[in-house]
Amino acid sequence: MNKEIGITVKKDQDFSEWYSQVVLKSELIDYASAKGFIILRPYGYVIWDTIKEYVDKKIKETGHQNAYFPALIPEGLLKKEGDHFEGFIPEVFWVTQAGNRKVGERLALRPTSETIAYDSYSKWIRSWRDLPLLLNFWNTVMRAEIKSTKPFIRNSEFLWQEGHTAHATEEEAKKEVRNILEMYKKLIEEELAVPVLTGTKTEKEKFVGAIYTTTLESIMPDGLALQMGTSHNLGQNFSKPFEIKFLGNDKQEHFVWQTSWGVSWRLIGAIIMMHGDDKGLVLPPRIASIQVVIIPIHYKEQDIIPVRKKVKEFVIKLKQNNIKVYVDDRKHYTPGWKFHDWEMKGVPLRVEIGPRDIRKEEITLARRDKEEKISVNENIAVDKVSILLEEIQNNLFDNAKRLQNEFITKIEDFVEFKKAIKNKGGFLRANWCLESKCENEIKEETGADIRVIPFRNEDVFGPCVYCRKEGKKVVYFAKSY
Amino acid sequence: MNKEIGITVKKDQDFSEWYSQVVLKSELIDYASAKGFIILRPYGYVIWDTIKEYVDKKIKETGHQNAYFPALIPEGLLKKEGDHFEGFIPEVFWVTQAGNRKVGERLALRPTSETIAYDSYSKWIRSWRDLPLLLNFWNTVMRAEIKSTKPFIRNSEFLWQEGHTAHATEEEAKKEVRNILEMYKKLIEEELAVPVLTGTKTEKEKFVGAIYTTTLESIMPDGLALQMGTSHNLGQNFSKPFEIKFLGNDKQEHFVWQTSWGVSWRLIGAIIMMHGDDKGLVLPPRIASIQVVIIPIHYKEQDIIPVRKKVKEFVIKLKQNNIKVYVDDRKHYTPGWKFHDWEMKGVPLRVEIGPRDIRKEEITLARRDKEEKISVNENIAVDKVSILLEEIQNNLFDNAKRLQNEFITKIEDFVEFKKAIKNKGGFLRANWCLESKCENEIKEETGADIRVIPFRNEDVFGPCVYCRKEGKKVVYFAKSY
Repeated sequence: MNKEIGITVKKDQDFSEWYSQVVLKSELIDYASAKGFIILRPYGYVIWDTIKEYVDKKIKETGHQNAYFPALIPEGLLKKEGDHFEGFIPEVFWVTQAGNRKVGERLALRPTSETIAYDSYSKWIRSWRDLPLLLNFWNTVMRAEIKSTKPFIRNSEFLWQEGHTAHATEEEAKKEVRNILEMYKKLIEEELAVPVLTGTKTEKEKFVGAIYTTTLESIMPDGLALQMGTSHNLGQNFSKPFEIKFLGNDKQEHFVWQTSWGVSWRLIGAIIMMHGDDKGLVLPPRIASIQVVIIPIHYKEQDIIPVRKKVKEFVIKLKQNNIKVYVDDRKHYTPGWKFHDWEMKGVPLRVEIGPRDIRKEEITLARRDKEEKISVNENIAVDKVSILLEEIQNNLFDNAKRLQNEFITKIEDFVEFKKAIKNKGGFLRANWCLESKCENEIKEETGADIRVIPFRNEDVFGPCVYCRKEGKKVVYFAKSY
Repeated sequence: MNKEIGITVKKDQDFSEWYSQVVLKSELIDYASAKGFIILRPYGYVIWDTIKEYVDKKIKETGHQNAYFPALIPEGLLKKEGDHFEGFIPEVFWVTQAGNRKVGERLALRPTSETIAYDSYSKWIRSWRDLPLLLNFWNTVMRAEIKSTKPFIRNSEFLWQEGHTAHATEEEAKKEVRNILEMYKKLIEEELAVPVLTGTKTEKEKFVGAIYTTTLESIMPDGLALQMGTSHNLGQNFSKPFEIKFLGNDKQEHFVWQTSWGVSWRLIGAIIMMHGDDKGLVLPPRIASIQVVIIPIHYKEQDIIPVRKKVKEFVIKLKQNNIKVYVDDRKHYTPGWKFHDWEMKGVPLRVEIGPRDIRKEEITLARRDKEEKISVNENIAVDKVSILLEEIQNNLFDNAKRLQNEFITKIEDFVEFKKAIKNKGGFLRANWCLESKCENEIKEETGADIRVIPFRNEDVFGPCVYCRKEGKKVVYFAKSY
């Protein structure tokens, strides 16, 4: 393969350029003509579809249903919850014309659906019998990105799901917030092989309009934190302005308790950054649409038929074991070219079948996550493939976990803090007095903010890292995407 | 059930009001706050999901892949194919502001994706090895409706799929156009139980930018035609302005040949209109998310446990036979109320299980499509359910087919034509000279246009219905939605 076609920079030398090349050259995305927008190409779409299937199944099992709300929200509706509106206003796209006519009231392109959904919830919910209302929307949201954009991480339109639930009691809403976060954690750690820290956001960093926000935070190999998903307790902040009331069992009217939560295609960005290497993408087997690619090798005419036969037999066996397999039988490309192409596309396991393998009754397996190529007897090849896929999944997670651990630095004072942020990045584990003054000034001086207040109560080990007053909580600071 | 909660008008007395009540009261949709937009509620969403699954499976089997393109298209791109742009301009929503800033070039909300997709196709396609390119997008499109709106039939935003393919030869593109139309026909007739006429559109009625458009047309019970889906041969009309070229096997550069095609949630509208009755929705079993609803009947305390046990056993058996079953065990609602509720929601088959059924080792089955209630021995009940579901599917199609036949009127002259359009509506089967002058004048005088020139060559039976010159084709006129 031509050097120019492969990735031309090393991951640890120019991370940002490496990332751009991987997303483009592995054909996950392309840039669209409107600035800040990307096109999700088929190879990227199937990854999103896999994530979608997982989440869709899990939420349906717990009683949630899907619905679709319009992409356009009248300005008056968006304004109904004041903080929420103020938070989103800088990035809202506005429709002001339809054909050659001016529209009456400006229409916002959905930056998120709280307001338009809750306008309906107030009509649909009448009695306790209508609760809980557990809805989810698969759609895209549009937020004009003013800062620099980055595929999957920061775009003016992104694919996501947004859950919006209404409950009779505060307790139930709180439980929903946590259950969803747990589901996201399983998805991200077990399927995507990316470890997360979970906890709550500070007042400053919470979702505009929420009582509190719970979050999943990961650290990327360049030492920047990435918010992977959030689950918000909205309390009655929206049910009051939107008048979402129900007649309780007690014959009294009550406002509902609400939650909202979402993950987006940003998760694909995390997979790329976390697992990719100098050859390109590396996909965790559980998320890969092609887990095994078979490259038939036949340089001589007489080898073609026996190789094809052997390939066919092996494909059947793999499919019987629910392994997602693809045979690359393209002509006009050499096996070597194909090796590189599938390495770039991150397929976890490559199988080579050539005349020598047939003679020796073997099959050759090459792992994507390690420089390791083995030959195994064809009778045990399918079992070996299953075992290797499992091993690759675990290995990717272990590597990512090691990286996460290396990127958590215990910090005692602010001199150390500044040095660590400058030299190494990552999560700085430090004590905090709970004052937003300190949080703001740290952000201003270092660019780092509090990513997460961990659920797990960690013992305070000293005074506030900034003001030296009493440390009340151990929190994780980081600079982030 | 309270009369006001049920449908309060008869289908054959006020079709339009009946339709509005059914879509709202069966909770398929609700109106959104922005005029012309609707909300797809969970019960409507699952119907769309079923249609989506069907189409997605079929197109994947024939090598198509999904992708996602942005919702916003720069004006310059939309203008690139002149006819196309002129056709869509009256209904395009325009984004002119982002936050408090004016956007440079106006951005159109996607009314369809030809232009934005083909801009990328010109980059992705280089050689004959890149062909055919067979992509599909599941998304929504936005077209400001200036005429009156109607849920599912005419809205300012609708869910659909749009396929966009590029081929090396004209022959291949033509074949794709027909194969897709065939797939749609199977979906609509076999799953939705709605018969269609298939053929091509006239020059006047074709898709703006196409060489020709093939179409599926159905007649609704009010005598108006509904376009169910279209599949377009774009020829090289887009590949030339967008410069989508490939290096052929012959070492020469060629422009690709293209197709585009789509069906939308309008299909749900057709199901409602075609099969619904005075009690509400009637869903064909193959498209119903709930095929069988079980209503446990226990007025006395001592009946609860045995009834629950029997219900549970029957549910297991139905699920083993892949029958989609739902048990309505809501308290605080009487069985009678539930009967009406599920009738309104159009569930094909209702099962009642009460103490008397248990005593007699029977199960009671009530069809939604007929006033027919039978009791069968519990040993054959599952088989009977399967048979009845099949019968209901066929019965709905047969009724719809009869309606279609009754609505096809052979017309010899224009006096007859005007009378038929005024009194009865439906398809008027008539001879046409192929002149658009006649087509236009008929439209002006009667409101009817040529819905379809049938694929099946029907023998001309006289002169042009309007100008009395030589009749060249038998075509189907109708007024339409």
